[in-house]
Amino acid sequence: MKPLVVTWLLPGLFDPAELRGGAAIIIDQLRASTTICAALTAGARAIRPCLQPDEAIRLRDEMVAGGCLCGGERGGLKIDGFDLGNSPGEYTRERIGGLTVAFTTTNGTRALLRAGEARAVAIGCLGNAGAVAAWAAGAACRTVHLVCAGTRERVTYEDVIAAGAIAERLEKAGCAVNAPDAREDDDSTRIARDLWRSVSATPGGVLGALRGSRGGRNLERIGLGDDVVECAEIDRYATVPVLDRADGMLKKGR
Amino acid sequence: MKPLVVTWLLPGLFDPAELRGGAAIIIDQLRASTTICAALTAGARAIRPCLQPDEAIRLRDEMVAGGCLCGGERGGLKIDGFDLGNSPGEYTRERIGGLTVAFTTTNGTRALLRAGEARAVAIGCLGNAGAVAAWAAGAACRTVHLVCAGTRERVTYEDVIAAGAIAERLEKAGCAVNAPDAREDDDSTRIARDLWRSVSATPGGVLGALRGSRGGRNLERIGLGDDVVECAEIDRYATVPVLDRADGMLKKGR
Repeated sequence: MKPLVVTWLLPGLFDPAELRGGAAIIIDQLRASTTICAALTAGARAIRPCLQPDEAIRLRDEMVAGGCLCGGERGGLKIDGFDLGNSPGEYTRERIGGLTVAFTTTNGTRALLRAGEARAVAIGCLGNAGAVAAWAAGAACRTVHLVCAGTRERVTYEDVIAAGAIAERLEKAGCAVNAPDAREDDDSTRIARDLWRSVSATPGGVLGALRGSRGGRNLERIGLGDDVVECAEIDRYATVPVLDRADGMLKKGR
Repeated sequence: MKPLVVTWLLPGLFDPAELRGGAAIIIDQLRASTTICAALTAGARAIRPCLQPDEAIRLRDEMVAGGCLCGGERGGLKIDGFDLGNSPGEYTRERIGGLTVAFTTTNGTRALLRAGEARAVAIGCLGNAGAVAAWAAGAACRTVHLVCAGTRERVTYEDVIAAGAIAERLEKAGCAVNAPDAREDDDSTRIARDLWRSVSATPGGVLGALRGSRGGRNLERIGLGDDVVECAEIDRYATVPVLDRADGMLKKGR
């Protein structure tokens, strides 16, 4: 049977046990998912998601001096005492090649922790939509869960269109967006996919949608509008950040 | 200041106090909202939403013999001992003119009860999108809340496109879908509106979307596919079912 794609527009909408045995893709489009892809593509050894800033700082202190940097944001901005913010462009080979990044963002990390019962967990966004869909389609699970991180329990436009882009690619890779029985069916996947199709059919539509979203408007307001442009590029990364349960780190999957 | 449109893709996503002072439109597109519009348009005196079937039967017993009928569904089908199911076509002037209907559906009634702190509450669907938007725009509230009923805590496609149709009409009537400050902004309204625009721009798109939804496929499966066609018609009713707090009944608003 084809794996079924199920989308959760917010992490609070599923019971953690519902993900058991499935593959989960965590989507925090603006910007954590994109930045994590950028960091691993640029040669970071691993990313350790941390819920709180002090957890990230403790991790940096515990590791060999210079082996770990702290990255992430609060309110969109770099945290005091941190080495890096949450802009994909900061994560260059020169800055983070060979290093571990202790990384904290509220919504993305919380979504990742909530998906802990899935059999395999990866990070997805527009930037790695094709790569992460290929990974999930090959994970041999009955269900592929697309988990939108949202922002403070509110659904965000950018996460939904990224979920839609990944759903479209999963469909092309042989996964199903309609269950054989309507009772097990999932409308959220079709909402995301259809919204993505509509947005991406218009020239400049994806960037326009990200810019018009609450998250995009917030980034613009704090002077980080360029990040939105960088995050709007589809299939820029071949990297799939996969959770290694042995150490809780995100590493480049094959 | 223009009233702001805020959409809740499920009733569980808001805290009841968040609706205080606002106007709320409850959307259970397939089929409760549509059927309630049909019933009041056909001359029913009032609709009393009941959470449980026995509550509806008790109400019928308490009223003057013949003055009240029981309507509603469980699993899409008419309930044992009830007079009517949940198909808009059943609610004709001959059947229900001048009568009260004690009406029970799980998701729509629950959504209505949860919205109880709003200053004004009405029922909306594709069928009365223009009328209910005009009502809400005229309610002089700071916020218009579109509450999608969903099905068993899952977002449904049909409720979201109905919310989008109403949001589009609210915008035309002078309401805002972007808050002046991105921090108070609401992406769910834009998701619904953009999905509606895309679906309604295609000939046959609305009916196709309803038929492809989980709810539509379920109705097809139990032989009620004709109801989907009836529910797909936009602005068929000029009726706005408004909650009268004095007796908990839905009545035709002006």
